[in-house]
Amino acid sequence: MTAASGKGPTRIRLGFVGGGRGALIGPVHRTAARLDDRFEVVGAVLSSNAEKSVADAAALGIPNGYGSLGQMIRAGGLDAVAIATPNDSHAALAIEALDAGLHVVCDKPLANTAPDGRRIARKVAETGLVFCLTHNYSGYPMVRQMRAMIEAGRIGKVHLVQASYRQGTLATAIETSDDIPARLRWRLDPAKGGGSHVMGDIGSHVHQLIRYTTGLGIDSVMAELGAIVPGRQAHDTGQALLRFANGARGQMLATKVAHGAENALAIEVHGDQGGLEWRQSRLDELTWLRNGEPQQILTRGSPYLEPLARQACRLPPGHPEGFHEGFGNLYRDFAEQVAARLEGREADPLAATIPTAATGLDTLLFIDACIRSSETGSWQKVER
Amino acid sequence: MTAASGKGPTRIRLGFVGGGRGALIGPVHRTAARLDDRFEVVGAVLSSNAEKSVADAAALGIPNGYGSLGQMIRAGGLDAVAIATPNDSHAALAIEALDAGLHVVCDKPLANTAPDGRRIARKVAETGLVFCLTHNYSGYPMVRQMRAMIEAGRIGKVHLVQASYRQGTLATAIETSDDIPARLRWRLDPAKGGGSHVMGDIGSHVHQLIRYTTGLGIDSVMAELGAIVPGRQAHDTGQALLRFANGARGQMLATKVAHGAENALAIEVHGDQGGLEWRQSRLDELTWLRNGEPQQILTRGSPYLEPLARQACRLPPGHPEGFHEGFGNLYRDFAEQVAARLEGREADPLAATIPTAATGLDTLLFIDACIRSSETGSWQKVER
Amino acid sequence: MTAASGKGPTRIRLGFVGGGRGALIGPVHRTAARLDDRFEVVGAVLSSNAEKSVADAAALGIPNGYGSLGQMIRAGGLDAVAIATPNDSHAALAIEALDAGLHVVCDKPLANTAPDGRRIARKVAETGLVFCLTHNYSGYPMVRQMRAMIEAGRIGKVHLVQASYRQGTLATAIETSDDIPARLRWRLDPAKGGGSHVMGDIGSHVHQLIRYTTGLGIDSVMAELGAIVPGRQAHDTGQALLRFANGARGQMLATKVAHGAENALAIEVHGDQGGLEWRQSRLDELTWLRNGEPQQILTRGSPYLEPLARQACRLPPGHPEGFHEGFGNLYRDFAEQVAARLEGREADPLAATIPTAATGLDTLLFIDACIRSSETGSWQKVER
Amino acid sequence: MTAASGKGPTRIRLGFVGGGRGALIGPVHRTAARLDDRFEVVGAVLSSNAEKSVADAAALGIPNGYGSLGQMIRAGGLDAVAIATPNDSHAALAIEALDAGLHVVCDKPLANTAPDGRRIARKVAETGLVFCLTHNYSGYPMVRQMRAMIEAGRIGKVHLVQASYRQGTLATAIETSDDIPARLRWRLDPAKGGGSHVMGDIGSHVHQLIRYTTGLGIDSVMAELGAIVPGRQAHDTGQALLRFANGARGQMLATKVAHGAENALAIEVHGDQGGLEWRQSRLDELTWLRNGEPQQILTRGSPYLEPLARQACRLPPGHPEGFHEGFGNLYRDFAEQVAARLEGREADPLAATIPTAATGLDTLLFIDACIRSSETGSWQKVER
Repeated sequence: MTAASGKGPTRIRLGFVGGGRGALIGPVHRTAARLDDRFEVVGAVLSSNAEKSVADAAALGIPNGYGSLGQMIRAGGLDAVAIATPNDSHAALAIEALDAGLHVVCDKPLANTAPDGRRIARKVAETGLVFCLTHNYSGYPMVRQMRAMIEAGRIGKVHLVQASYRQGTLATAIETSDDIPARLRWRLDPAKGGGSHVMGDIGSHVHQLIRYTTGLGIDSVMAELGAIVPGRQAHDTGQALLRFANGARGQMLATKVAHGAENALAIEVHGDQGGLEWRQSRLDELTWLRNGEPQQILTRGSPYLEPLARQACRLPPGHPEGFHEGFGNLYRDFAEQVAARLEGREADPLAATIPTAATGLDTLLFIDACIRSSETGSWQKVER
Repeated sequence: MTAASGKGPTRIRLGFVGGGRGALIGPVHRTAARLDDRFEVVGAVLSSNAEKSVADAAALGIPNGYGSLGQMIRAGGLDAVAIATPNDSHAALAIEALDAGLHVVCDKPLANTAPDGRRIARKVAETGLVFCLTHNYSGYPMVRQMRAMIEAGRIGKVHLVQASYRQGTLATAIETSDDIPARLRWRLDPAKGGGSHVMGDIGSHVHQLIRYTTGLGIDSVMAELGAIVPGRQAHDTGQALLRFANGARGQMLATKVAHGAENALAIEVHGDQGGLEWRQSRLDELTWLRNGEPQQILTRGSPYLEPLARQACRLPPGHPEGFHEGFGNLYRDFAEQVAARLEGREADPLAATIPTAATGLDTLLFIDACIRSSETGSWQKVER
Repeated sequence: MTAASGKGPTRIRLGFVGGGRGALIGPVHRTAARLDDRFEVVGAVLSSNAEKSVADAAALGIPNGYGSLGQMIRAGGLDAVAIATPNDSHAALAIEALDAGLHVVCDKPLANTAPDGRRIARKVAETGLVFCLTHNYSGYPMVRQMRAMIEAGRIGKVHLVQASYRQGTLATAIETSDDIPARLRWRLDPAKGGGSHVMGDIGSHVHQLIRYTTGLGIDSVMAELGAIVPGRQAHDTGQALLRFANGARGQMLATKVAHGAENALAIEVHGDQGGLEWRQSRLDELTWLRNGEPQQILTRGSPYLEPLARQACRLPPGHPEGFHEGFGNLYRDFAEQVAARLEGREADPLAATIPTAATGLDTLLFIDACIRSSETGSWQKVER
Repeated sequence: MTAASGKGPTRIRLGFVGGGRGALIGPVHRTAARLDDRFEVVGAVLSSNAEKSVADAAALGIPNGYGSLGQMIRAGGLDAVAIATPNDSHAALAIEALDAGLHVVCDKPLANTAPDGRRIARKVAETGLVFCLTHNYSGYPMVRQMRAMIEAGRIGKVHLVQASYRQGTLATAIETSDDIPARLRWRLDPAKGGGSHVMGDIGSHVHQLIRYTTGLGIDSVMAELGAIVPGRQAHDTGQALLRFANGARGQMLATKVAHGAENALAIEVHGDQGGLEWRQSRLDELTWLRNGEPQQILTRGSPYLEPLARQACRLPPGHPEGFHEGFGNLYRDFAEQVAARLEGREADPLAATIPTAATGLDTLLFIDACIRSSETGSWQKVER
């Protein structure tokens, strides 16, 4: 069945670039794409060696393998591509795909540099194609509930924001080891992994989560980025004080030296009428706080959720969803937007909140400001 | 690509029976089957009306629809079937499939009556085919960790067991409402839903979870089953005191009248050297308790887990997995066992713990003993 | 300053019986009595040897020591006595004190046998004196909130009750050890510790907590009591199915063989309109559950609490209170009742919920029914 | 019985200054002092009106009332005084008491200004008397466990510190209300409450907690302090990036605009071999994190605790302790130090960790650096 079949739901014909054997995020993309059966994976570029790419694709059950994106494009039959290669290659690949009229899913961060990010964002704007940046945490139902509640004014005017992402993966000097996995090695190389490893890798998630939930722009930052583990070149920790455009204040932390921290992503937003707290370790819960009233624990799947959250739920409350479903929600919303184009109809407006190239550019400009601030020891404006 | 292709992993050719539109568990089975791309869904029986079945299958992106299992079997091209119909039809369907040489995935409970369950179990034994009963909670990595730790003697000889499954779905007399969903209506009808609704529906999960984790047989029970909500015919609550074959003691609860309880499944097992606690609401955690030592919280994805648990993990710690992955682990283990048959090799021994027809029969015999006990107000032996 | 001084709050002149050096509960009673400065401790019977008693009292900063309760009574100057001796001595001591016109605080359980308990209860009724049985958990603010909410109909008609108290203190055969502390030794001796150690020691708390919060009588029980650790004489585990007078159903567990369980007391009560959950490990929280609405976490010290709970709070929310404050609330309510008598005024009605001799007798009759049930393997009525 | 009695434990003769009716912290000081019966409260200055002071003292059961500290000193019979007056009066009162040869307990912060704090610290050094600053959180057993574990190298060299104290008490502009309690009014007045209300009131706790647990000096800060609620003069929120003397990095937050936050004090310290997390809402637990090993939850009262923590425990694990006990541990350690002086013996070295005037001065210098940093938008050294 193809996208043109007309029977059943339209399935988007998708090609993968990157994310082959040994990759961290490749299997996640493939599982996320498969979750709702909205995609037909028709090809993959898993190596610059075409023969190896064919073999690797077959091993994954993907019918066709190619040595380059250009080759895959020329083979035809694609509606969209998903890019899961090292950050420094995103711009060239995304632009090539967009130029070929293909919709794009792209792994985060958008790029290693703001200029690269800006080129992608402009091309997306020019072509009008659908672009989804997989900041997957914005696919979680209770993160969407947080956004919807803040947008609906449930906590009043936002005045304080705290967010953090803690890992322990670089708590010791593992990069001096010989057996460091290849997937980690490129990330720690500033040329491939970006000027601030920790900010690009997980600080970008923190920034995007703040933006997604609060809708607020960050006006200026006072940051300190660097390597806490002696002898390390790559940044392993980034901290910043934040001033928001609406006058709110806040703080963020992204670190990989928090021993034993297991992808501990958390956000807490307070307004003048209440507060909301969410953390990945209890992803199906959202805590609503108001002075003088009992705390309320909202749970995924519940009937009282806002439409944006309800639409993102698959299972009843108490039957846990997880990372794959959150990631899958981005793929599903992307599929909905692409299918609407293919079918000549309006897309479901609830599918419209997926992170885009513009979102990703915002994050790169935020990281740039953090780097300038850390180098100068002074507050820096975030460029728009 | 078919199971015979030889390139890439073998994909099992699967047909679905039941679980069409409006069904509760159908979408879960399909997602679980899709999660690891080990199945090719080639057909489905979604209605006794063949035409409707074709249309419904198409709507789900399934290539072929049939009006009956026999029709689907005769169409050929199947390795296995998945049965997700009302409980009273499991025996006839499962036996028909097994007689046709097909491996079977069957939704729980195995059947509504012990004699039906025994017929299935015998047929499975006769044919030697692979049979997977989807007591999905035994697919959770930390439940598997619990089993492996108990088996390895980490808590010594088990002496106390407590387990419960609480829901609030029948906390009020919803069955008197006109708009009760069809998927609930058959469950509350003793003819289709079994002699004790709550025990068949969720008490069976509690029993299986106890058996799966402890490996212990239950020798006798003192139970009280019934309807707590006035005017209800179906059982909404089952409680039982338990005596285990090894001398351990315990207690279980299955209820649907616990207002606000969200599929609250929990188990706690204590031995003479330590204890283990697990609950679905924190499915990625397992608490290990020993007098005089700090509690340890083991987490999914961690390197220290036992092989049986590690094999069931897809994501690093802190990136939550959920219900679909647990369910999917049963489908994955089933696929491994079937693929090994198709490929003429030994299956991975870690794939061998999935619940089978024999497991399901044990549960039916336990429920029978509970019913007898509740009716007589006396301790009753569980038949073997 | 004495109770008669008229300046400042009346301080009750209190004498202690038992609870000297090495005792478990003695220091708790003394701290609880001291917490609100409503008592003046004027004497203590800490040994049958008067000289030793004087020395021990002095070591505790208590001005006078006596060799017997009679001696302390004859010395005069007392308003009340607190009894913290082994269970088998409660009846004689309490009756002696009541006969002397003294108000009594008595450690739980009321006695080892129902006849002893009945003698105390009758004497209390005859004399009209104030009697406080220190089932301390009913002093916790959030337990009082639970009682007040149920009484006010916030969860509708109670239909399901689950309660448990788990410890690990007897998870192994420690009584075979030579260095078992004396305070444990008498408790394991049926003559001093009662017919069912676990039920008298902690099962009594479970029963009282159920009664205190729900206000419901237990009509009949199906219990299994015994020793899970091989070779033990004393009961270490008690389990029971419960039928309530109003038709509700339930279950209870009291065990000392749950490795690593740290005084894990918990109760969950569901009605036809909602549920409430409380556990000692989060004593300052009470969870309110209603189908289709977010869970609410009520916290101690909050303005929305019922008067019965608010009156029991000392600190603002988030500044934790604990065991001493809960215990102290019983002493405070007792002091209020006694002071009201001394001052010839009405006592604060919120001080009226402390457990009494009648409460304690109910518990002993419940334990008797559990023992009969366990011995006969049949449901037994709880005597009134 | 007096300190000179020789029978039983020495009781310290204590006089209170401040903390009368309507005061927030006065009752806490009195309860903390009473908890272990190590003090005899002999007098109090509760008003500058001597007559009112006598009446108020009597109402609290305190035998003598005075119109000034001088008057109370001249009345004689004191070993120590406890000061719980507004911050701006601490210096004069503390110095007067020290000059009179009295040991001092003083509420935090030490003073409103660093010069005042320095005068007190010098006087303490000169006189050699015992001085206890009631940063009560350092009395919690699990905070002491954290300190002892870090000191013993259990997490290696500290490299990352995160700490926060969140309240919602000023989430709205309550100071514009007419019925704001007097105890709050002086705190919001910079003249009496200090240059940065939030930093003096709760930021001081955060700083002291960091110092107490890690033992590390803070070298420099980059802070932003201010009022988040429009129209407010007093600071309601303080945030700072921290550079430690040993090269560690960190962040702190003190805010009163976090709606619904209930004295949410938390600290997390990571070293190169592990991490430790503690929060007041679970005060009896300490989480020990190490990459690749299960998290361990250490609990108060457990046998494996370090001596510094064990000495601070009163109850077995699972029977919760709280705010009063933590506060009381400072009073107990203070009593031990004073009693040792009175008895001419060495004090228990485990009683030596109570915060002193030097500690309090450190905190004032930290706050000063934060104020300078916030005003200049630049990193500022903390003066020594």
